[in-house]
Amino acid sequence: MSAVDKQLEQIRDEIEQEVPPDIHVSDVKYEGPEVVVYTQHPKEFAQDGDLVRRLASKLRKRITVRPDPNVLTPPEEAEAAIQNVIPDDAGVTDLDFHADTGEVVIEAEKPGMVIGRHGSTLREITQEVGWTPEVVRTPPIESATVSNVRNFLKQEREERRDILERVGRQIHREEMADEQWVRISTLGCCREVGRAAFILSTAETRILIDCGDKPGAEGEVPYLQVPEALGAGATNIDAVVLTHAHLDHSALIPLLFKYGYDGPIYCTEPTRDLMGLLQLDYLDVATKEGRTPPYQSEMVREAIKHTIPLEYGDVTDIAPDVKLTLHNAGHILGSAVSHFHIGDGLYNVAFSGDIHYDDTRLFNGAVNDFPRVETLVLESTYGGRNDYQTDQEDSERKLIDVINRTTDEGGKVLIPAFAVGRSQEIMLVLEKAMRNGEIEEMPVHLDGMIWEATAIHTTYPEYLRDDLQNRIFHDDENPFLAEEFNHIDGGEDERQEVADGGPCIILSTSGMVTGGPIMSWLRHVGTDPESRLVFVGYQAQGTLGRRIQNGWDEIPINDRGNHGRAETLQLEMDVETVDGFSGHADRQGLENFVRTMNPRPEKVLCVHGDERSVQDLSSALYHEYNMRTFAPKNLETFRFK
Amino acid sequence: MSAVDKQLEQIRDEIEQEVPPDIHVSDVKYEGPEVVVYTQHPKEFAQDGDLVRRLASKLRKRITVRPDPNVLTPPEEAEAAIQNVIPDDAGVTDLDFHADTGEVVIEAEKPGMVIGRHGSTLREITQEVGWTPEVVRTPPIESATVSNVRNFLKQEREERRDILERVGRQIHREEMADEQWVRISTLGCCREVGRAAFILSTAETRILIDCGDKPGAEGEVPYLQVPEALGAGATNIDAVVLTHAHLDHSALIPLLFKYGYDGPIYCTEPTRDLMGLLQLDYLDVATKEGRTPPYQSEMVREAIKHTIPLEYGDVTDIAPDVKLTLHNAGHILGSAVSHFHIGDGLYNVAFSGDIHYDDTRLFNGAVNDFPRVETLVLESTYGGRNDYQTDQEDSERKLIDVINRTTDEGGKVLIPAFAVGRSQEIMLVLEKAMRNGEIEEMPVHLDGMIWEATAIHTTYPEYLRDDLQNRIFHDDENPFLAEEFNHIDGGEDERQEVADGGPCIILSTSGMVTGGPIMSWLRHVGTDPESRLVFVGYQAQGTLGRRIQNGWDEIPINDRGNHGRAETLQLEMDVETVDGFSGHADRQGLENFVRTMNPRPEKVLCVHGDERSVQDLSSALYHEYNMRTFAPKNLETFRFK
Repeated sequence: MSAVDKQLEQIRDEIEQEVPPDIHVSDVKYEGPEVVVYTQHPKEFAQDGDLVRRLASKLRKRITVRPDPNVLTPPEEAEAAIQNVIPDDAGVTDLDFHADTGEVVIEAEKPGMVIGRHGSTLREITQEVGWTPEVVRTPPIESATVSNVRNFLKQEREERRDILERVGRQIHREEMADEQWVRISTLGCCREVGRAAFILSTAETRILIDCGDKPGAEGEVPYLQVPEALGAGATNIDAVVLTHAHLDHSALIPLLFKYGYDGPIYCTEPTRDLMGLLQLDYLDVATKEGRTPPYQSEMVREAIKHTIPLEYGDVTDIAPDVKLTLHNAGHILGSAVSHFHIGDGLYNVAFSGDIHYDDTRLFNGAVNDFPRVETLVLESTYGGRNDYQTDQEDSERKLIDVINRTTDEGGKVLIPAFAVGRSQEIMLVLEKAMRNGEIEEMPVHLDGMIWEATAIHTTYPEYLRDDLQNRIFHDDENPFLAEEFNHIDGGEDERQEVADGGPCIILSTSGMVTGGPIMSWLRHVGTDPESRLVFVGYQAQGTLGRRIQNGWDEIPINDRGNHGRAETLQLEMDVETVDGFSGHADRQGLENFVRTMNPRPEKVLCVHGDERSVQDLSSALYHEYNMRTFAPKNLETFRFK
Repeated sequence: MSAVDKQLEQIRDEIEQEVPPDIHVSDVKYEGPEVVVYTQHPKEFAQDGDLVRRLASKLRKRITVRPDPNVLTPPEEAEAAIQNVIPDDAGVTDLDFHADTGEVVIEAEKPGMVIGRHGSTLREITQEVGWTPEVVRTPPIESATVSNVRNFLKQEREERRDILERVGRQIHREEMADEQWVRISTLGCCREVGRAAFILSTAETRILIDCGDKPGAEGEVPYLQVPEALGAGATNIDAVVLTHAHLDHSALIPLLFKYGYDGPIYCTEPTRDLMGLLQLDYLDVATKEGRTPPYQSEMVREAIKHTIPLEYGDVTDIAPDVKLTLHNAGHILGSAVSHFHIGDGLYNVAFSGDIHYDDTRLFNGAVNDFPRVETLVLESTYGGRNDYQTDQEDSERKLIDVINRTTDEGGKVLIPAFAVGRSQEIMLVLEKAMRNGEIEEMPVHLDGMIWEATAIHTTYPEYLRDDLQNRIFHDDENPFLAEEFNHIDGGEDERQEVADGGPCIILSTSGMVTGGPIMSWLRHVGTDPESRLVFVGYQAQGTLGRRIQNGWDEIPINDRGNHGRAETLQLEMDVETVDGFSGHADRQGLENFVRTMNPRPEKVLCVHGDERSVQDLSSALYHEYNMRTFAPKNLETFRFK
């Protein structure tokens, strides 16, 4: 009998000691980080509301109870019974029965009402029908991404269970190493912005954190070929953790599967969906620009199939000697500060990913409170000594002013924005300003993936700022449903119509003017001296956005009518930058994050910033807070224990 | 046609342009780092004394010319002709013809006389008989090691040629990496003494420097299992460089072959022989102590078969982007500061190995003059702020005094000493003192491997201090042949006889009293209060030598007559330590090495010293010489370019 099976036997013994004698446990399995308990008495199990919690705390594992298939009420009967238990107001839109696992997936507009107080309604369902309910939210705005991901996972259910079982056994394997050490290897985003990728390794385990591309420098990918990464074989990586969905952190994750990786990806649920959306768009853009994409869309599906979603705060075993906990990072939907507890109290490392320290309209500020943390790997995008941003209040006033000046003159406001994050923040600002009469009510056109990304935001309100959650839970107050927002889904004709019309605001991708519909909008309104181009986000070195910010006014445009030959367009619009809407903490925010961090880490690695930013921040944290700080280069390895 | 073959074609073209039209080049091959030119006209080739040098300088490669087998004078005829050309005084002891390569190996007591001025005699031989002569020295003291190694290599000649050809093609492969970087990974000997092992890696190449054990801590071996070492497969290592033969640098090199390594080992010729001697003894000791040796003696032979010996100062291609040059390190016979030139002027790293900065009786001081060097990896054994040693002159006086005090009282002097290095240094001190009448003439008994190690020293006088070389070249002045030196080769009986006899000096292994005949000597003379135990070398933490130095006088002795049960012996001898004979530079020597280094490196990694020593030295070099210094931990990776 293998060590894992022996361990499962023990767990089963412990469970049987804990459950009442009338409950029969028929099987105990690992599925990913969870222990799944199969029983012929699911109803009896559900009667004791506290039993699962007691088991979890006794075993220090996450527990899921599933009914034996032979004790289930048939689906038709069960459906009626379930509908009967759930209040009508919950707005159930779909019920999906999976006989193999005894699970029923309930899609509802108000998941909270399906769950009930402390899960009471869920337990009631199980007591009635035996099935184990799983609840997902019906997106308030229809999202192709969310429904594609859900359908795909439904279709791949069996393979997914195999994956989870394999990963589960891997996580709970017996430790083989007879030594203990903790190391971080840097594969990208050191002394640069982009291509985030790190290896966290112990004598037992290797974990890849992020795997992104570099905006404005397509060839520069993380150093995956070195032996400490994939050089020793992709199967030597135990797990991948994704801090958030932006492409400079996620773009090359599907490539891992092409290279033979077959393990789990841990991230939040919205990160999984946004990742899928952005990766498919990444492939699309590469193809449109005539580049060979590094992988095919099939690999994006592999990535999604291998994702194990975690909620903020869940402490999860991801290797025999590593526990992962994700915490809100305040940067974009689902973004996470990733905290690793290694060994039995041996060491703790937190990777900030990208963070925003203060609350924004969309998100609560980043969490910086941990049980323990010795080393922090900290983003430094705005770590330079002068990288102070305007307060968001001032920025909002400035944006409103720019809009009013432009529309007063009959012009249009064109805002290049990342589909994910900045667009929704600006939407909230505009909605409020129109509601309060600070700007006139006028159409706000959303082009590119912005609409779709917004739909995903409304699917996962738990990840938004507290008061925004509450508003979204009530349809009539959901700011994203405001009537001014128009989804550009009619292509060039609709754009022409908008261009020919009156004052309006246009939010369009790509955020750094490197392609996408913004190029078309530049053709439509770029020559109109009354209109304004307003930058609200970071423009990376080497992007057209940065060049326009620096004063370029001859814009290369590929006119499709001209057989793809490059033409230039003379930019006549005013160009303005309104900063302060960044998803990143500014220098003050980064310092505040570290200063108020609890506990204060001993060591900080400053990464994800240009040379000057990481050096400045590293030096300041060393001098002001007396910490050991480093500004690593790519391809280095630091040992902490 | 492969890239390597294309390159060989080009080289052949260039050679044919350079040689006179009457010389026919029949083949051009790589053998290890050398280009071997086969010709049907070896005699004509040899006529132009400068031709090979011109070719080497044109091609920037090392060139060897070999005759086609069909143009060779038959061995019997050739032998007579060769004996005729070589002066009788050269003392030829063996001629060995290898028809496959057209080489004749000439063993002679005075190799210089076989070579002739600027190689004139060698050329004359080729002109006479066509054969390519290779000269080796007849050991003045018969050495089983040297003769075993030479016989073994003769016997494995064919396989060795295959290895060399394979290595040659590997060295001259086309570069595949499209990036350039230089890194050092630490696998051992950081913040500790022992288990030296580093990986020097570029985007193209990975080189292992040293692979030793840790004296006093058998279980602690270098971190070979990590992916940047052998974790990604032993075949991912391009080359192994061995700085010197001591076991804390060489013990685990044969293990690499057990793990599947099949590439070259670069070191000096004496390092190769001493390595073989020490590794076989290492296996022997492990077996005697009841430990399972990590590899079998077969693997030692593999290591010797794969060794490509280099001379000090030879610039040698060892990878497409790496040139290696070994320089005298002054530490033990054949010890080398290893200088790596990477890329075409990209970066230069020097590994000090173990060094002695000042001249000793045996060796010239370490070389610290290089064309370029940006990073120095520096041993720090005596890097602590108080690690100043007595001047050797004072130490010698003190040693002489201790000996006189002991023998005046009728006692014996027992000196535990490393077979390789310290023993020969002490022998030279004793020989001089007796010659000058500073101590009485008395027997100096050499036990363990000391005699054999001494024989190896006399085989390679080119590696000894200038004036010592000259003395050894003349038999009647060879200090190692002094009649006081007695080789203990009669086992326990002879030891008993010595113990029963009058005053004498005994030099015996092991140097740290961890086993070997010194244990027997402790039984024989340890209880004699008139006798003295004198330490002259470094005693590592955890060794019995260190404990005795610290005052222990109950010595565990395994008496063979007692079925191996542990007994203790009450040490009655006086114990003294005479420092200053170390093979290591002291703190001042280390500072002098760096201070006078030309050019001064930008960065220094302080390694091979305990925590305090590396920190002290690193801090001192930073403050006094304004360099970037580091005290790495094991398992870290530093990037330099």
